[in-house]
Amino acid sequence: MTGIHRLTERACEQLDAHWRAANYLAAGQLYLRGNPLLREDLRPEHVKARLLGHWGTCPGLTLVYTHLNRLISERGRRTLCVWGPGHGAAGVLAGAWLDGTFGERDPDAARDGDGMAHLFRRFSHPGGLGSHTGHAVPGSLQEGGELGHCLSHAYGAAYDHPDLLAVCVIGDGEAETGPLAASWHANKFLDPVHDGAVLPILHLNGYKIAGPTVLSRIPEEELGDLLRGYGHEPLFVTATPDSAPCDVHRALAEALDTAADRIAAHQRAARQDGVTARPRWPAIVLRTPKGWTGPDTVDGVPVEDTWRSHQIPLSAVREDPAHLRALDAWLRSYRPAELFDTDGRPRPEVLAWVPRGDLRLGATPYADGGRLRRSLPLPDPSAYAVPAEERGRDRHEPTRVLGGLLRHVLDATADRRDFRVLSPDELDSNRLGAVYDASPRAWQAGLRETDEHLGRHGRAMEVLSEHLCQGWLEGYLLTGRHGVFASYEAFAGIVADMATQHAKWLQSAREVPWRAPVSGLTYLLTSHVWRQDHNGFSHQDPGFVDHVLNKSPEVVRAYLPPDTNTLLCVFDHVLRTTDVVNVVVAGKQPCFDWLGPAEAREHCARGAGIWEWAGTETGEREPDVVLACAGDVPTEETMAAAALLRGWLPELSVRVVNVVDLARLVPADRHPHGMADAAFRALFTDTRPVVFAYHGYPWLIHRLLHGRNADERFHVHGYRESGATTTPFDMVVRNGLDRYRLAMDVIDRVPGLVGRAAGVRQAMADVRHRHHAWVREHGTDLPEVTGWRWPDGAAER
Amino acid sequence: MTGIHRLTERACEQLDAHWRAANYLAAGQLYLRGNPLLREDLRPEHVKARLLGHWGTCPGLTLVYTHLNRLISERGRRTLCVWGPGHGAAGVLAGAWLDGTFGERDPDAARDGDGMAHLFRRFSHPGGLGSHTGHAVPGSLQEGGELGHCLSHAYGAAYDHPDLLAVCVIGDGEAETGPLAASWHANKFLDPVHDGAVLPILHLNGYKIAGPTVLSRIPEEELGDLLRGYGHEPLFVTATPDSAPCDVHRALAEALDTAADRIAAHQRAARQDGVTARPRWPAIVLRTPKGWTGPDTVDGVPVEDTWRSHQIPLSAVREDPAHLRALDAWLRSYRPAELFDTDGRPRPEVLAWVPRGDLRLGATPYADGGRLRRSLPLPDPSAYAVPAEERGRDRHEPTRVLGGLLRHVLDATADRRDFRVLSPDELDSNRLGAVYDASPRAWQAGLRETDEHLGRHGRAMEVLSEHLCQGWLEGYLLTGRHGVFASYEAFAGIVADMATQHAKWLQSAREVPWRAPVSGLTYLLTSHVWRQDHNGFSHQDPGFVDHVLNKSPEVVRAYLPPDTNTLLCVFDHVLRTTDVVNVVVAGKQPCFDWLGPAEAREHCARGAGIWEWAGTETGEREPDVVLACAGDVPTEETMAAAALLRGWLPELSVRVVNVVDLARLVPADRHPHGMADAAFRALFTDTRPVVFAYHGYPWLIHRLLHGRNADERFHVHGYRESGATTTPFDMVVRNGLDRYRLAMDVIDRVPGLVGRAAGVRQAMADVRHRHHAWVREHGTDLPEVTGWRWPDGAAER
Repeated sequence: MTGIHRLTERACEQLDAHWRAANYLAAGQLYLRGNPLLREDLRPEHVKARLLGHWGTCPGLTLVYTHLNRLISERGRRTLCVWGPGHGAAGVLAGAWLDGTFGERDPDAARDGDGMAHLFRRFSHPGGLGSHTGHAVPGSLQEGGELGHCLSHAYGAAYDHPDLLAVCVIGDGEAETGPLAASWHANKFLDPVHDGAVLPILHLNGYKIAGPTVLSRIPEEELGDLLRGYGHEPLFVTATPDSAPCDVHRALAEALDTAADRIAAHQRAARQDGVTARPRWPAIVLRTPKGWTGPDTVDGVPVEDTWRSHQIPLSAVREDPAHLRALDAWLRSYRPAELFDTDGRPRPEVLAWVPRGDLRLGATPYADGGRLRRSLPLPDPSAYAVPAEERGRDRHEPTRVLGGLLRHVLDATADRRDFRVLSPDELDSNRLGAVYDASPRAWQAGLRETDEHLGRHGRAMEVLSEHLCQGWLEGYLLTGRHGVFASYEAFAGIVADMATQHAKWLQSAREVPWRAPVSGLTYLLTSHVWRQDHNGFSHQDPGFVDHVLNKSPEVVRAYLPPDTNTLLCVFDHVLRTTDVVNVVVAGKQPCFDWLGPAEAREHCARGAGIWEWAGTETGEREPDVVLACAGDVPTEETMAAAALLRGWLPELSVRVVNVVDLARLVPADRHPHGMADAAFRALFTDTRPVVFAYHGYPWLIHRLLHGRNADERFHVHGYRESGATTTPFDMVVRNGLDRYRLAMDVIDRVPGLVGRAAGVRQAMADVRHRHHAWVREHGTDLPEVTGWRWPDGAAER
Repeated sequence: MTGIHRLTERACEQLDAHWRAANYLAAGQLYLRGNPLLREDLRPEHVKARLLGHWGTCPGLTLVYTHLNRLISERGRRTLCVWGPGHGAAGVLAGAWLDGTFGERDPDAARDGDGMAHLFRRFSHPGGLGSHTGHAVPGSLQEGGELGHCLSHAYGAAYDHPDLLAVCVIGDGEAETGPLAASWHANKFLDPVHDGAVLPILHLNGYKIAGPTVLSRIPEEELGDLLRGYGHEPLFVTATPDSAPCDVHRALAEALDTAADRIAAHQRAARQDGVTARPRWPAIVLRTPKGWTGPDTVDGVPVEDTWRSHQIPLSAVREDPAHLRALDAWLRSYRPAELFDTDGRPRPEVLAWVPRGDLRLGATPYADGGRLRRSLPLPDPSAYAVPAEERGRDRHEPTRVLGGLLRHVLDATADRRDFRVLSPDELDSNRLGAVYDASPRAWQAGLRETDEHLGRHGRAMEVLSEHLCQGWLEGYLLTGRHGVFASYEAFAGIVADMATQHAKWLQSAREVPWRAPVSGLTYLLTSHVWRQDHNGFSHQDPGFVDHVLNKSPEVVRAYLPPDTNTLLCVFDHVLRTTDVVNVVVAGKQPCFDWLGPAEAREHCARGAGIWEWAGTETGEREPDVVLACAGDVPTEETMAAAALLRGWLPELSVRVVNVVDLARLVPADRHPHGMADAAFRALFTDTRPVVFAYHGYPWLIHRLLHGRNADERFHVHGYRESGATTTPFDMVVRNGLDRYRLAMDVIDRVPGLVGRAAGVRQAMADVRHRHHAWVREHGTDLPEVTGWRWPDGAAER
């Protein structure tokens, strides 16, 4: 059933009926609270008290919906449409109501007059449907609020879904955003063999909110160059306010058929004929008037085809009879009586091209990816564990060891192809290079002899764009798969707002009964703040955790494994999670092994625990002080501080607590991982001072502790925004997180030790002096500091 | 002195000498701690103990530096170069050492052998020079750490600097980022009459850290299409490892001359001949081998022209005699004895094309914009103030009134052209449309009859890219001007990391003695979390303030003016600031006027103060409770709560405190705006409960209060991540910030009121019930809630 064909007149009429019906429904959502079928003359009381919504982009979106119905019906191809334009929900909801999926999910909104009235009333009503294509819209897999993510989502959806056609409607407003602009080059990463196809439809209607759009105002030739430069073959479809609808239907149908044919040909060539040249995938440029088919002029000023139709073209309908008449005429211009029967059901002509079952855009499981999700085949993490025979003796690079586990998962999913590892060109830099043994990096552009670890079918993905990594991974997870985003810690903040939107999506989607859970989005933040020896201050920012933890507790998690084995256990957990955002912070530099495989598993299961072997308490009474830590570098400093205190003040009773799962610190009623008060007191005592060494901004710990009535006795050390191109030990010294400062803080906080402080302070000053001199001469840390060892036999395992 | 000319042989030799010298110096920085001029055979002890730095991009950057020297010397044109590639500092520092500017700023690094040795030792040494072109690099106006901002910075620098040529070297790695990809379209906003020119040099060396780059691996024809699609005329210069240097010099010189000639012609046409068509500005594609002129192979594997030359091509120089010999040969390949005299001074031939004085790239005042900055001509804000004759009677839209003040500043700078207002297509939506009366929106693309407020010479800037707004404004401020970035509150987070980098730049630049202060970067966050009636949850995020306040206290400020007059006063302040990031949060919806013009000024000067007229304390004793608030919506809710308490519990002594400048809450030793403890106690008492209504995430207030020993008695209400498409009052109810909840919290916290709680709770429940029913029916808030008024006569002004 392929091949270009011109639409029959009858098909044209059917498509036009669907389009008119969808436009009627979109306009009805904006305006009507009663009289949905216009059986009566329109009166002010039929109109909503408050008019909120957006008309401008709707007629273009309904046109696409109409024509994708035809394409799907003709070809039977699994199709997902990612709706980019921000305020298009009324148009997409119209399509979903017509294809029946909206009513299937909300029985009050069945395909009849009552259901139509319900849809109209729910739209832009408090607690109802927003004007974005969000979680409540069947067939939508993204929250349309923050613009610019649609194309990367579409690619993410298409990767490893060879049968899928991911259509992506891109608004010309959002096309100005950075994330969207970068996304065009995603075709250099799309494997025509194992991936589906992405068909971008650049929808030019000329305006954003109030201003013109760049891409609609450059000459068509320039725009054609741009799309060819992006590696696409552009197909132009242009409608003006004067176009005969059937001409537009024919042009768009032809463009879609052409695109589908070429996609099929490219896939055939790659899959059957072994062609390896990167295809020039088609892309459609659809130019339609903004607010097309809406009021031409209002109060004497042009509205259709101008920015004035962005929101509510007629704003005074309840007050101004002329506006009311104009609305009546506008709505009747779609000839609703021809479209809906007396019960308000769409007539067969309207539904002639609506596909059946899961092929409907509103029903596609690709937009409700939890339905497609299978659990990952995970290895026993102890298979990758390091022996850690003696605590604090050997060091490993945690991410390098984790690389082995990720390689395993890539291997185990080689046939299923539902796991990817993404990074902004840093997998090897982040010491995760082991993944290349299981999968090369996806690459469809030119190759050179000296290239390594690149392959046309790769599932490791590297591109120097955090936005693309994030968008691809979101699209991949939202369509039912699994993945990990490894990033330099400081630059995860580049996608802070995308993480926000994803967290908000997850939170909202949890409230939608028909949405199935999707895999957790896991960040591995490495190359972290404490080890930026030559990158310096610009690369020192641990704030991403703070940002994520501002979001709803149901959907956010943060883990700071202190060593290699705990990192493995944390990953064993996060790769099983659903509907959450996981932030895992772990360094790539050699890090002492503290826990053996079994201990690590137990410690991670608890999320926080006492390391008895590291402290000096005897169990007879409460310890004098608690040394707490979260993060690999703070843990090392804390262990060293404990060792110093052991030598300096052997009679002091010290407890050491390590926290892996930050949310454990939160009271149990405020976070699902929160610890009950009794358990909290069992760790941190009720009254003793706690000297807490934390990886990031120290106030985050105070925030998490809020409600524990513990704020004043916790003394948190962390990153205080003092950074530079400098050595690792100088970094902790600058920020007051070094072992000497921690030990000193203990002496300052525990009553009765003041008299001992002078000697200790002198010992500290001596080391610092020698260290400073050494650094100046050698450019590296004093070996005594970096080569430090946990005292022999102090804590045999 | 224009016109294409082919380089003479002598010029070629001179340029090549400079290039070789710069390459020698770049490699020397990576490796040498002694023997800088290779007077002796290279021995292991001459080599740094730790090799940190990046060679890969350096030879390309030094080539550009060399040739810009020639261009400037020939044409005398003021030129700034924005160095995009991340790790190019060694190359740029080499150029700055050769043009003398580095030594002028650091006398230890004079242009002789000792100075050279000093430069070498400082590079990548703890506390020394980073491997990015950061604050310490003469001629640099950006921190090169986070990639992708260079082109928007270059445009920002060029706007309103008609004489400036802003050259921008774009790495092919960073070209993959979203912010960079969006920046190419900035030429649709560049006025050839009043703005300078931007000359992009896309530097393709084929690799990022470890992988190939997209733009270097697509066919040249496709890349040409892309640049033409961006509106550029591409000029290609290609060097291979086998190229004769002089051929490359000739080709690059010719491309630069061609570009400069065409830029001059475009500017002449626009400025003298009145041509209004958008020019197709030239852009250069410079393809050079990564690590060019470095070791060809190392240990038998290719290094030059591969990703292996990204960092340190020879890594074992101190251990492996073969590596040491290879380094010796590499360094000597530049023939240092020909380049430097016996004292290590560059020979005249090397410096033949170095420009003089401030024309040198390292000396340009455009890279140290504080030297060009003039204070803004600001009006008396009371000229725009609203009368506020009676407190809480009239409402104004704060941003609409502020629009008048901004219009004034635009008018007053019409000739100076050193003030711009930027927004992602939201000026009118944010009710700042008054600025259009003073300046249209900058626009160089196509126009239609129905367009409004667009103009070729506009200084209001709208593009649907927060990244572009941010990058342009940074570039504009860093080159000595002023501006405001108005954004929807939720989407400021899109540029969170750019704000981080700018704050880090400001903090670092403060430590550089020769850098002059630049204007504060001011965000106006409006369309905020509490009023997203139809946008809903995706648009509800007040976290940008949290993000910014994580940065160093010296450089960050946050203001939450409670009404229109205070917003004017805050702006009167922030537009005078230097070297800070200001975040101002203010709604656009009608907001009660609380303070008259003089009161507003006094209140803002204090940053926080008691509103005696709003409370009921008599002055005889401490009040029973403090109601505190920050932000416009929380202030209204607090005032309403105070009014309710007045009626319910007239005997209760209530104090009302409003906070404008959040940093006032911080202890004085932790933030320059922090309040001394005595002043803090004078506002908030020592022991009384404080019910604090805050605009954003409540824990931010606790964080700011940390160190006040006040955490337990402050009960902060704010946004708890509960959002939806809903009414304004429902939003505050959902988040526990509504007047009834605040009043109830007072009753719960003040001892002795428990007996009164039941009646009040009933009154609350009644209103909520009626409100809920009303909303369901009308889709709007109960008029009693929205039409609420501060009690007549309760606080006459």
